[in-house]
Order: sequence, then C-alpha cells, then structure tokens
Amino acid sequence: MTTHAAMANAIRFLTMDAIEKSKSGHPGMPMGMADVATVLFTRFLKYDAKAPKWADRDRFILSAGHGSMLLYALGYLTGFEDLSDIEQIKNFRQMGYRTAGHPEFGHVAIAETTTGPLGQGIANAVGFALGEKMAAARHGAEIVDHYTYVIAGDGCLMEGISQEAISLAGVWNLSKLIVLWDDNHICIDGDTAISTSDDQLARFQASNWDVCRVDGHDPETIATAIAAAQKSGQPSLIACKTTIGYGAPTKAGSEKTHGAPLGAEEIAGARAKLNWPHAPFEIPADVLSAWRAAGSKGSEARATWEKRFAAYGNKAEFESTNAGILPAVWKQAVSDFKKKVSAEQPKWATRKASQEVLEALTPVIPAMIGGSADLTHSNLTITKATKPVTPRDFSGRYIHYGVREHGMAAIMNGLSLHGGFIPYGGTFLIFANYLWPALRMSAMMDQRVLYVLTHDSIGLGEDGPTHQPIETLSALRATPNVLVFRPADPVETMEAYEAALDNATGPSVFALSRQNLPTLRTTHTDENLTAKGAYVLAEAEGKKRQVTLIATGSEVSLAMEARKLLADKGIAACVVSMPCWELFERQPKEYRSKVLGEGTVRVAVEALGTFGWERWVGENGAVIGMNGFGASAPAEKLYEHFGITAEKVAEAAMVRL
Amino acid sequence: MTTHAAMANAIRFLTMDAIEKSKSGHPGMPMGMADVATVLFTRFLKYDAKAPKWADRDRFILSAGHGSMLLYALGYLTGFEDLSDIEQIKNFRQMGYRTAGHPEFGHVAIAETTTGPLGQGIANAVGFALGEKMAAARHGAEIVDHYTYVIAGDGCLMEGISQEAISLAGVWNLSKLIVLWDDNHICIDGDTAISTSDDQLARFQASNWDVCRVDGHDPETIATAIAAAQKSGQPSLIACKTTIGYGAPTKAGSEKTHGAPLGAEEIAGARAKLNWPHAPFEIPADVLSAWRAAGSKGSEARATWEKRFAAYGNKAEFESTNAGILPAVWKQAVSDFKKKVSAEQPKWATRKASQEVLEALTPVIPAMIGGSADLTHSNLTITKATKPVTPRDFSGRYIHYGVREHGMAAIMNGLSLHGGFIPYGGTFLIFANYLWPALRMSAMMDQRVLYVLTHDSIGLGEDGPTHQPIETLSALRATPNVLVFRPADPVETMEAYEAALDNATGPSVFALSRQNLPTLRTTHTDENLTAKGAYVLAEAEGKKRQVTLIATGSEVSLAMEARKLLADKGIAACVVSMPCWELFERQPKEYRSKVLGEGTVRVAVEALGTFGWERWVGENGAVIGMNGFGASAPAEKLYEHFGITAEKVAEAAMVRL
Repeated sequence: MTTHAAMANAIRFLTMDAIEKSKSGHPGMPMGMADVATVLFTRFLKYDAKAPKWADRDRFILSAGHGSMLLYALGYLTGFEDLSDIEQIKNFRQMGYRTAGHPEFGHVAIAETTTGPLGQGIANAVGFALGEKMAAARHGAEIVDHYTYVIAGDGCLMEGISQEAISLAGVWNLSKLIVLWDDNHICIDGDTAISTSDDQLARFQASNWDVCRVDGHDPETIATAIAAAQKSGQPSLIACKTTIGYGAPTKAGSEKTHGAPLGAEEIAGARAKLNWPHAPFEIPADVLSAWRAAGSKGSEARATWEKRFAAYGNKAEFESTNAGILPAVWKQAVSDFKKKVSAEQPKWATRKASQEVLEALTPVIPAMIGGSADLTHSNLTITKATKPVTPRDFSGRYIHYGVREHGMAAIMNGLSLHGGFIPYGGTFLIFANYLWPALRMSAMMDQRVLYVLTHDSIGLGEDGPTHQPIETLSALRATPNVLVFRPADPVETMEAYEAALDNATGPSVFALSRQNLPTLRTTHTDENLTAKGAYVLAEAEGKKRQVTLIATGSEVSLAMEARKLLADKGIAACVVSMPCWELFERQPKEYRSKVLGEGTVRVAVEALGTFGWERWVGENGAVIGMNGFGASAPAEKLYEHFGITAEKVAEAAMVRL
Repeated sequence: MTTHAAMANAIRFLTMDAIEKSKSGHPGMPMGMADVATVLFTRFLKYDAKAPKWADRDRFILSAGHGSMLLYALGYLTGFEDLSDIEQIKNFRQMGYRTAGHPEFGHVAIAETTTGPLGQGIANAVGFALGEKMAAARHGAEIVDHYTYVIAGDGCLMEGISQEAISLAGVWNLSKLIVLWDDNHICIDGDTAISTSDDQLARFQASNWDVCRVDGHDPETIATAIAAAQKSGQPSLIACKTTIGYGAPTKAGSEKTHGAPLGAEEIAGARAKLNWPHAPFEIPADVLSAWRAAGSKGSEARATWEKRFAAYGNKAEFESTNAGILPAVWKQAVSDFKKKVSAEQPKWATRKASQEVLEALTPVIPAMIGGSADLTHSNLTITKATKPVTPRDFSGRYIHYGVREHGMAAIMNGLSLHGGFIPYGGTFLIFANYLWPALRMSAMMDQRVLYVLTHDSIGLGEDGPTHQPIETLSALRATPNVLVFRPADPVETMEAYEAALDNATGPSVFALSRQNLPTLRTTHTDENLTAKGAYVLAEAEGKKRQVTLIATGSEVSLAMEARKLLADKGIAACVVSMPCWELFERQPKEYRSKVLGEGTVRVAVEALGTFGWERWVGENGAVIGMNGFGASAPAEKLYEHFGITAEKVAEAAMVRL
C-alpha cells in the first residue's frame, strides 16, 4: 500500500524540482503543509478532479498563494485535466503555461480564486462559506452542502483584512468554514516573534471561532481535527504546527526555504533524507495511482448529487443563476424606469437615483445581494426586496459588513466566485482606498462585483478633505478591467447599472453624488447612451460647434449652465456627458472624434483631481477640477472656493477661442 | 465647586449647539464620551493649553475623528489659543474656520493627527507611543516621558488596520499607550451586534494588552482605570461602556445621534434633562474657569521640564532633530556617492542602489528610521547603521513591521508626527494599494515619510500579475502632495532621496526595480537633475531633434537603445529621463517645453499602465506601456510579450515622423 508519507513527499519533490528548474518560487510552504494537504485531499475534500466545476464541491482556497506549487502538485497528482500533463509542472512560472507564479482563477480549475496578495484568500473564503449558507437556504441541503477549506499562513493572519473576515465569519457563525493555519513560526524576515506576539487561537476564539492545535506532520491528528471541525457549530481554526521546508536537510525550519529554490545539493540531501530515489518530476506509479484514486473518489458522491439534482424542481433556475444569466424580465424594468424618470424629472442625488434603481432591479434579479460597510442609509443600498442576512436566516439578501470596506470587497469576490450571486456593496467613494487591493482582484478575476460608492466629490461638503476623493477616480480608471461610472442623473444611473450588469466579466464602480441634481435626460431613449461611455447631451445651437464641454456626474448640469453662459456671448458650445471612460474608449474612432469635437476648444470639468483628463481635452484644452485636497464647508461654498463653477468653465473656453 | 457633571455637560452642549447651527456633524460620540474626556483632560493628561507643542506633552489622539466636536470643545474650554474664540465653535464646518468636519493636523494645535478615516488614529497612536519609547531610549526619561491616549470607537476596532496596530503594540509592549474605547454598542447601521460578535477584551489580550471594562459615565471608575493603566507594563485597553448621545432625551442610545444634528426640540429636552439652562454657546463662568484651570495645570510640569531641558547636554540636537533639520554633513554624503557611482558605473537594480544610498545616508542622518513589511531582504531596506528595534531595546533604528503594509504606513505617520524621526518603510510597489489610505494621510498632513517600493513593474517577472503594478504609479501620481520618484540608475536614486529629504512637507515614494540596470549618469554633476523632475539625458545628435523619447526608471536604458536604433536609421532622437512628474510640473514653462521638445514626435515608455501619460506626449504622441494585467514569466520574456522593447519604441516614433 502507498503510504501517506510517500504521497506527501510526492508534493514535496514536485515542488522542489519545479522551483529548482524555474529558478524561482516558494518551496517552504508546500513542503511544510504537504502532510496537511494530503490528509485533506485524500480523506476529506469532496471533489472530483474530472469535474472541477461541480456546483456542490467543497471549496479549497490556498490563501498563502505564494505556495502555488502545492496547488499545482495537487492538481497534477489528483488528475485535474488542465494540470495532468507534467509539462505544466516542468514549466512552472513560464510564459504560455498555466502554472503561474501565484494561483490564478481561470488559469487552472483547481484555483477557486486568485491568491498571492496576502489575506485576500481567507477573506474570499468567508464569502465562499457565506455563499454556501445562502445558497443552501435557497435550494436546500440536498442541493447545496459543502465545506470551504483554507490554507493560510502567518502573513495572511498578520494582514488586517484577515481580522475583518474572521470577525464576520464569527458573526455569521459560518460553521462549514475550516481554516488550516500553517503555524511554522517563520516569516520572510525571520522568526515570527520579531513581529508578532499574537495568541492566534485566543484571537480567533474572541471572534466566536472553534479552535484547536495539531502537529501538522501527524496525519492522524490532522484527520481527527478536521473531522471535529466539520461537526463544529462554529467556523474552525486548526493551527497546524509545521516545519517550513520540511525534508530539506539543512534549511528546513528556516526562512531560507520560503522564497527561493533550495539548490541542487539541498534537494539531493532531501532525496536521501526522505528516501525518494526518483528522478525529478518522476512520481512512482503506485504513488501516482493512489493520488489519482483520491482525485476520482468523489465521482460517486457527485453521481449521487447529479441524480438528486436532476429531480430538483428549481434545477433550471439554479443553473442559470449559477451561470450568471439574468432573468429576461429585467430589461423591461430598465426601460420602465428610464421612461418614468425622464418624464417625471426628479431632482435626486445620484445616490438616491441608485436607490431607486436598486428598488427597481432587486425584485427582478434575485441574484443581486446588497450590502454596505456600515453606511446603509448614506449609500442608500438597502431595498424592500433585500432583507438582511442574519446568522439565523441566510435567505436574506442584504449584508451588514460593518466598518470593513476591504473585507466587504473580498467577501463580495468570494460570493461572486462561489456562483449564484451578483454582489453589490456600498461605502463612500474615498474609501475605495481601503478596498483597493480586493477591487483589483475583482478585476483580475473578471468578477461582476458592483461597487456603490457615494459622496463622490467635494460635493459632499462639510465632512471635509479626509472624506473628499481627489485621486480616487483616476486610480480606478487606471485599473484594468474596471468600468467606472459617474452618472449625471437618474437616467444615466439606470443605464450605468444596466451596462454594469451586462458586463459579466468584470467589476463596475458607481461614483454617486451626495447632493441633489436635476434630471438632464428628459427625452426617453431605449438605447443605453451611457453604454457608449460618452455622448452629446446637448449639441451646439445656432451655428457650428466652437466649444466642447466634457463633464461627468454632478458637473454635467454645471456644464449645461456654462453652455448657456457661452450662448449668451454668442459662442456655440456642446455638452458631452462622459459617464464611463472605458466604454467610450471602445467606441469606433469616428464616433469618438465626433463626440469630442476635434478641432473645437475642449474643456473638461469634474470636481475631483484632474489627473488623466489630458486624454480627452488634448494639449490645448482645459481641465477644471481639483489640484489639491478639499476643505470642510457646505458644498456650494466649496465649488465656489475651488473655482469649479459655470463661470470658470465658460471663461476657460473663452480664453482659448 | 464646579462639578464633573457640569464640566462634561459643557462639552455636550457645545457639541449639540455647534452641530445644530452648522446643520451638520456627529453629536453622538462627544456626548457619550464627555465624561471620559473630562476625566482625562482634568486629571491625567499632561499638557499646557498655552504651549500645545511642548515636546514632552502627553499625546491625545481622537481616532474616532467624526467626533471632532469633542476635540474642539476641549480646545475651547481648556484655552488652546487657536480655539479660544467661541466663533470657531459657532462656525463649525464652515469655510475659513479651523473647526473642520474632521480634526485636521495643522488646523488646530490640539489635533495631533488628522483623523476621520477610521482606524488611522489608533494606528498613528502606536507610532506615537513607539516614538516615545525610541526618543526616551535616546534622550532618557528626564527629557522624554509621556503617555499616548486614544479615544477609539467601534468603527476603529472593526477596521483591519486596528488589528495590525494592536498586534504591533503588543509585540513592542508599548506600556504607555492607553486606548479608551467608546463601547456604546452602536454603529451607523444600528446595534453593533448586526456586524460584530467580537469579544474585544479577549482580542486585545490575545495581542498582549492589559484590558479592563468600566462604566464610561462614572468618573471615579474611569479615573481608577486610567491610573492602573498608567502603571501597567503593557499597552492598555479600557472599554468604556457608554450611551451614545448621552443626555438626549429620546435619541440617546440610538444610531440616530451618530451623524446628524439632534434638532431643536431634542436639544431643548437635553437642556431640561441635564439641567443646563444656558443659551447656546454660553458656558457659565465657573465652568469655563474650572476648565481653563485644567488647561493650565500642566504649566508647572512644563516649567520643571524646561528647566531640566535647559541643562540637557544634547539640547541642540534634540531641538534640531525635532524640528526636522538634517545635520549639514549629509549633503557631502550625497555628493560623494554620486561621484563614486558615476565613476564606477555599477549595474545595480535600483532597489540595490537604494540600499547603497541608505548605507550612505543612515549613518549621517540619525533621524532616519528604517523598516519593511516583512520584505527586508527584497526591499533591501536595512543598513549597518540601523539595528532592529526590539521590546527590550528601543535605541534601534529598524522596524520589523510584519506583513502589515497599512499598519506600517500609519505607524510611520505617527512616528513622523511625534517628531524626531524620518521614517522610511519598504514593501513591493503593488502593495501600495494596501497602504494607500495611510499614504494619503502622510500627504494631507505634510509628513516627510518615505516609501521604498521595490519590484516596480512587470520587470519583477515570475511572481506574476498579482504582484505586477499596473495602475499603481498613476494612482500615486494622482494623489496631491506626493513626490513619486522612479529613478533610472544609482545616481538618480541618490538624487531622488536627496530631493525627498529636502522636501520636509510631504511624503515621497521611490519606485525601484528588482532587475539590474546600467548606470546611465556617467558624468558627475553636483546639481540634482532628478530634482528638476525631468531632464535631457542624451540630446539628439548630428542634427536637430526629431524625436523625444521620454522614460522613467528601468525603461530609460531601453529608451537609450531605441535612440540608437533610430540613429541607425538617420533619425535624431533625444532621451528625456523623467524620474518625478510632480517636480517637473514645478519647472518654468520654457524649461519644460525645451525638455519635452514641443514640435518633435514624442514617445513615452514605462513598463506600467499608460494612464496619464498623454500629459507629456500630447495627442499625437505614443505611449508604450501596459494596457492590462501582466503575466508570470521571466522578465525579459514579459517585456517581449507585452511589446515593451527598444524596437517598438523606435517603431512608434518612426510611424509618427
């Protein structure tokens, strides 16, 4: 019989050899956690390597993403199709192969999420485990009943985001979340004692977790702990005491094994020490076959589930929701809303418009899950259709994340990756800076996560510069694969949501005003003009366009005033509303040229930082916006003080004519 | 005798009345914590309202910055000069007054730091308390011996950054840090139970804190707890059980008091309930005089200290270091280094150049305090002169922050604000996104904090897209008052440090390569060319300049190659090195025009996102850079794959000629 040790050593040597060959990588963690991973993947994890996307599989999250070779070795050994060719392992971290430096969602099926930036994985896992509870509340335990396992390192637990996630897991009592902590007492700079004295077990306990400590190299103890954790009524932390780089003859237990190849001599020593006489990348047939058996063991459970699922009354809805398909009826809601507001022309802040949009959409799109980082009644994110999720009732659709923007975003990523949910979450636009790392992951993983970011400029007034975004929109616009919307009125707000929901392969941001604004789109069009990114809202009148005023959000109405001031002087100005740069960039060149009015004097106005606007106004254009931090005063005073007024816009145009 | 209650009520009514008048603000917290603040400011805090910058004062940090009226009321009542005019209180949150919506460092002396973004204050406080220990280790307890007090709310404790800070305070055993937690069980969305089940006392204890719980409305219990905390050998958390909006007849204890004026009726009710018959903004003479006495009580301690200080041997150095003045000798070190490297022309990565710069500067600038978020040997931030700070020895100059980028940045802010230190801290450039909120505070507070951010592009190679910055530089450049340097070689690296150290009123970022680069500045100049932001590194030869190639950092040498390729085709190209946009923007227009070569074909190259570069290349220029996320492979392959090569740069120029 193939021993546990041989199976664990297979992980260790694939790791050492791949990293040695690529001259790059992190061997310490996979070698240290090989025993734990072997126990998990051979005895507990419910999966079928041949059907990696089975909806009711257990989820495994490698939060310590630098240990990517652990995941790739497991994928190869258990027979995941996209990793079953040893060439993938031999070409670790090379161009054109799936085995990237850190595990990337979409590259290999075994990666449930992209990890590497520490703490993200454990926070995603809280989203996965929450998603499981929520899906189970909707479809029943016959259809949804799976665990979420995490391997996390010291780095993950040091990152602040881990506390936000741990805390929420405790609030929600996510009993099927099991974290295996690689407690090796080593960080990159040396012994963890140089930078932490935390009693992690006590810390997790303080957040309502079940905790225990095991020898991470003793398979039976590990198994006993996982079995107990499965039965626990709380989320579980299992501290696995391990030796980093286990098996390396001279470097084991040292930070030297963390992030660099071990070297030929050390690996030869490990071969001797662990009695592994096989050549690099060679796994003895019995070991490989034992691993492949483990990888297909779950096929039986899957077959049983498939049978149950075939008989499930709500099968079609479960499938389409999981595939991210929206119920057709939602487009009608969009149209109805646009008709209504273009006729009634309310004077709403766009955050209020967003609330009304959500009131219209959440009843017809049940996958939408709301929430806020403790600013519900400022972000206006809750609706009649979205009652709160509580530890006693997961059928709800609204999440009180607390003051945890970063955790919120990472949990939304987890919910989205789990499948079946389109999460949206609110905070102030400025606090995009607290959640930036997780938003970047939404973008990199092509996840349809919606960020409802209100109080989007100095227009928020009295809260002052700490709350007034300046650089925020530029930073978001600079991030690949993010749609950044700054709608001007209720029509554009609905259109922005429509475009965001139509974009199934990336996150969207809505920058929304605190202050009231007029409705500008007073003639209904079924066409989504916001989806073009920018369009002519009001063409120059009387004669050929001389000036093009480009604005977003709350400044579009200001541009309309400026247009009037210019008209009074006999100058023909056009107003372009540009709610989404990224979508505008995708338009044909002729459309863009026409909208931008090449050859005319161009002036952009946006009550945030001016960085990046040269793209649209050119070298001779003007940008009216903020060139420093804001101030604390009523909004109108601030616009006046910082010179963001119709008069200044008109002046900037006139001096350039 | 004026009672404690009357003094506390003075805070409450100034708060209610100011917020009512401005129709904006957060009354709940100041009303709830008025008793605690009164005890602290009348019996414990060592301060002299007439000498708010006294170096050995206790520091008080209002981490729950939305409760700014607490600070302003205290400032007015105790007689801080800049708040002693009641007009400041009457014009809370109005243009032109110091009483901003959130407390701003530099606006009112009583604000030791700017707070509002939650969790920043408590993390700054860890930096202040660390600064105290470090200053005491240098100057002795006769000169430096003060406490750091914090008032924090539930929001501060929910934010992940609090965990990073709490954890480090525990590691360092910062016994003179005392946190008063406003334990009112209310968050904005309602009862804190909806989003937290944390046992905060157990959580802090798990990080080596001393903890206790008191009735936050019972002055004697509060006093006993503070006295005990002062004597504790660990950092202390005092959980103060309070009623939010204490005194409001119908709204007390509810989130309704958190962030909006109470309304005239409710305030009238509070006047009746608390027996406060005085008109708005009127403080009875006995109460004001009791408060002013409290505010001047510390003058005696200060006088005694001044006397000791007058006799202190190291007085001059203490004063100049605290004033942020650098020892004159450092400029010689800069010059020597530049001479040496321009002659020797090493092929160093700029992170290695940074290490050598730090080796040259840290011995001559003792105020420089290094550190890294657990990437010391990747960031290359430690030097011979900077031995680590440990809980047993605070004379060190290097800080192991652990994997806590956000905490690191906020603690650096605290160290800088404390006075006497110029902190620099390292992580990978991509992880600027974890520390962004704190970096923004460095900028807003004009603090000379240095961010050493290595692995600054796809040039880091195999770690892949999770670690490759794309949007990062754009985001940093968009942030006001940050100098962003991306030096090309060892000479520019030293010049960047020189310019950063010369800039005493804001933070600087150094974006540094992982990969080796040639030395390009091979002729020594005493002039700091990097301080001009951009300059002609290699003028076009043979004929009039036709092409201007603009590059930063690792791409400057690539631009030099492209220049050669163009020369081979008979095209006269100039290479402009542009290590710092912000400094270039400050140059006279003629200089800028000359450098940019207006009228020539302009091509920029930078191996990060292209966002914002239109500013320098104009509408007809080209930008060679990244238009999406990176990939995992060796660096050379990535440059090739993404088309960031000398050939592509030359081509882009040629098609535009």
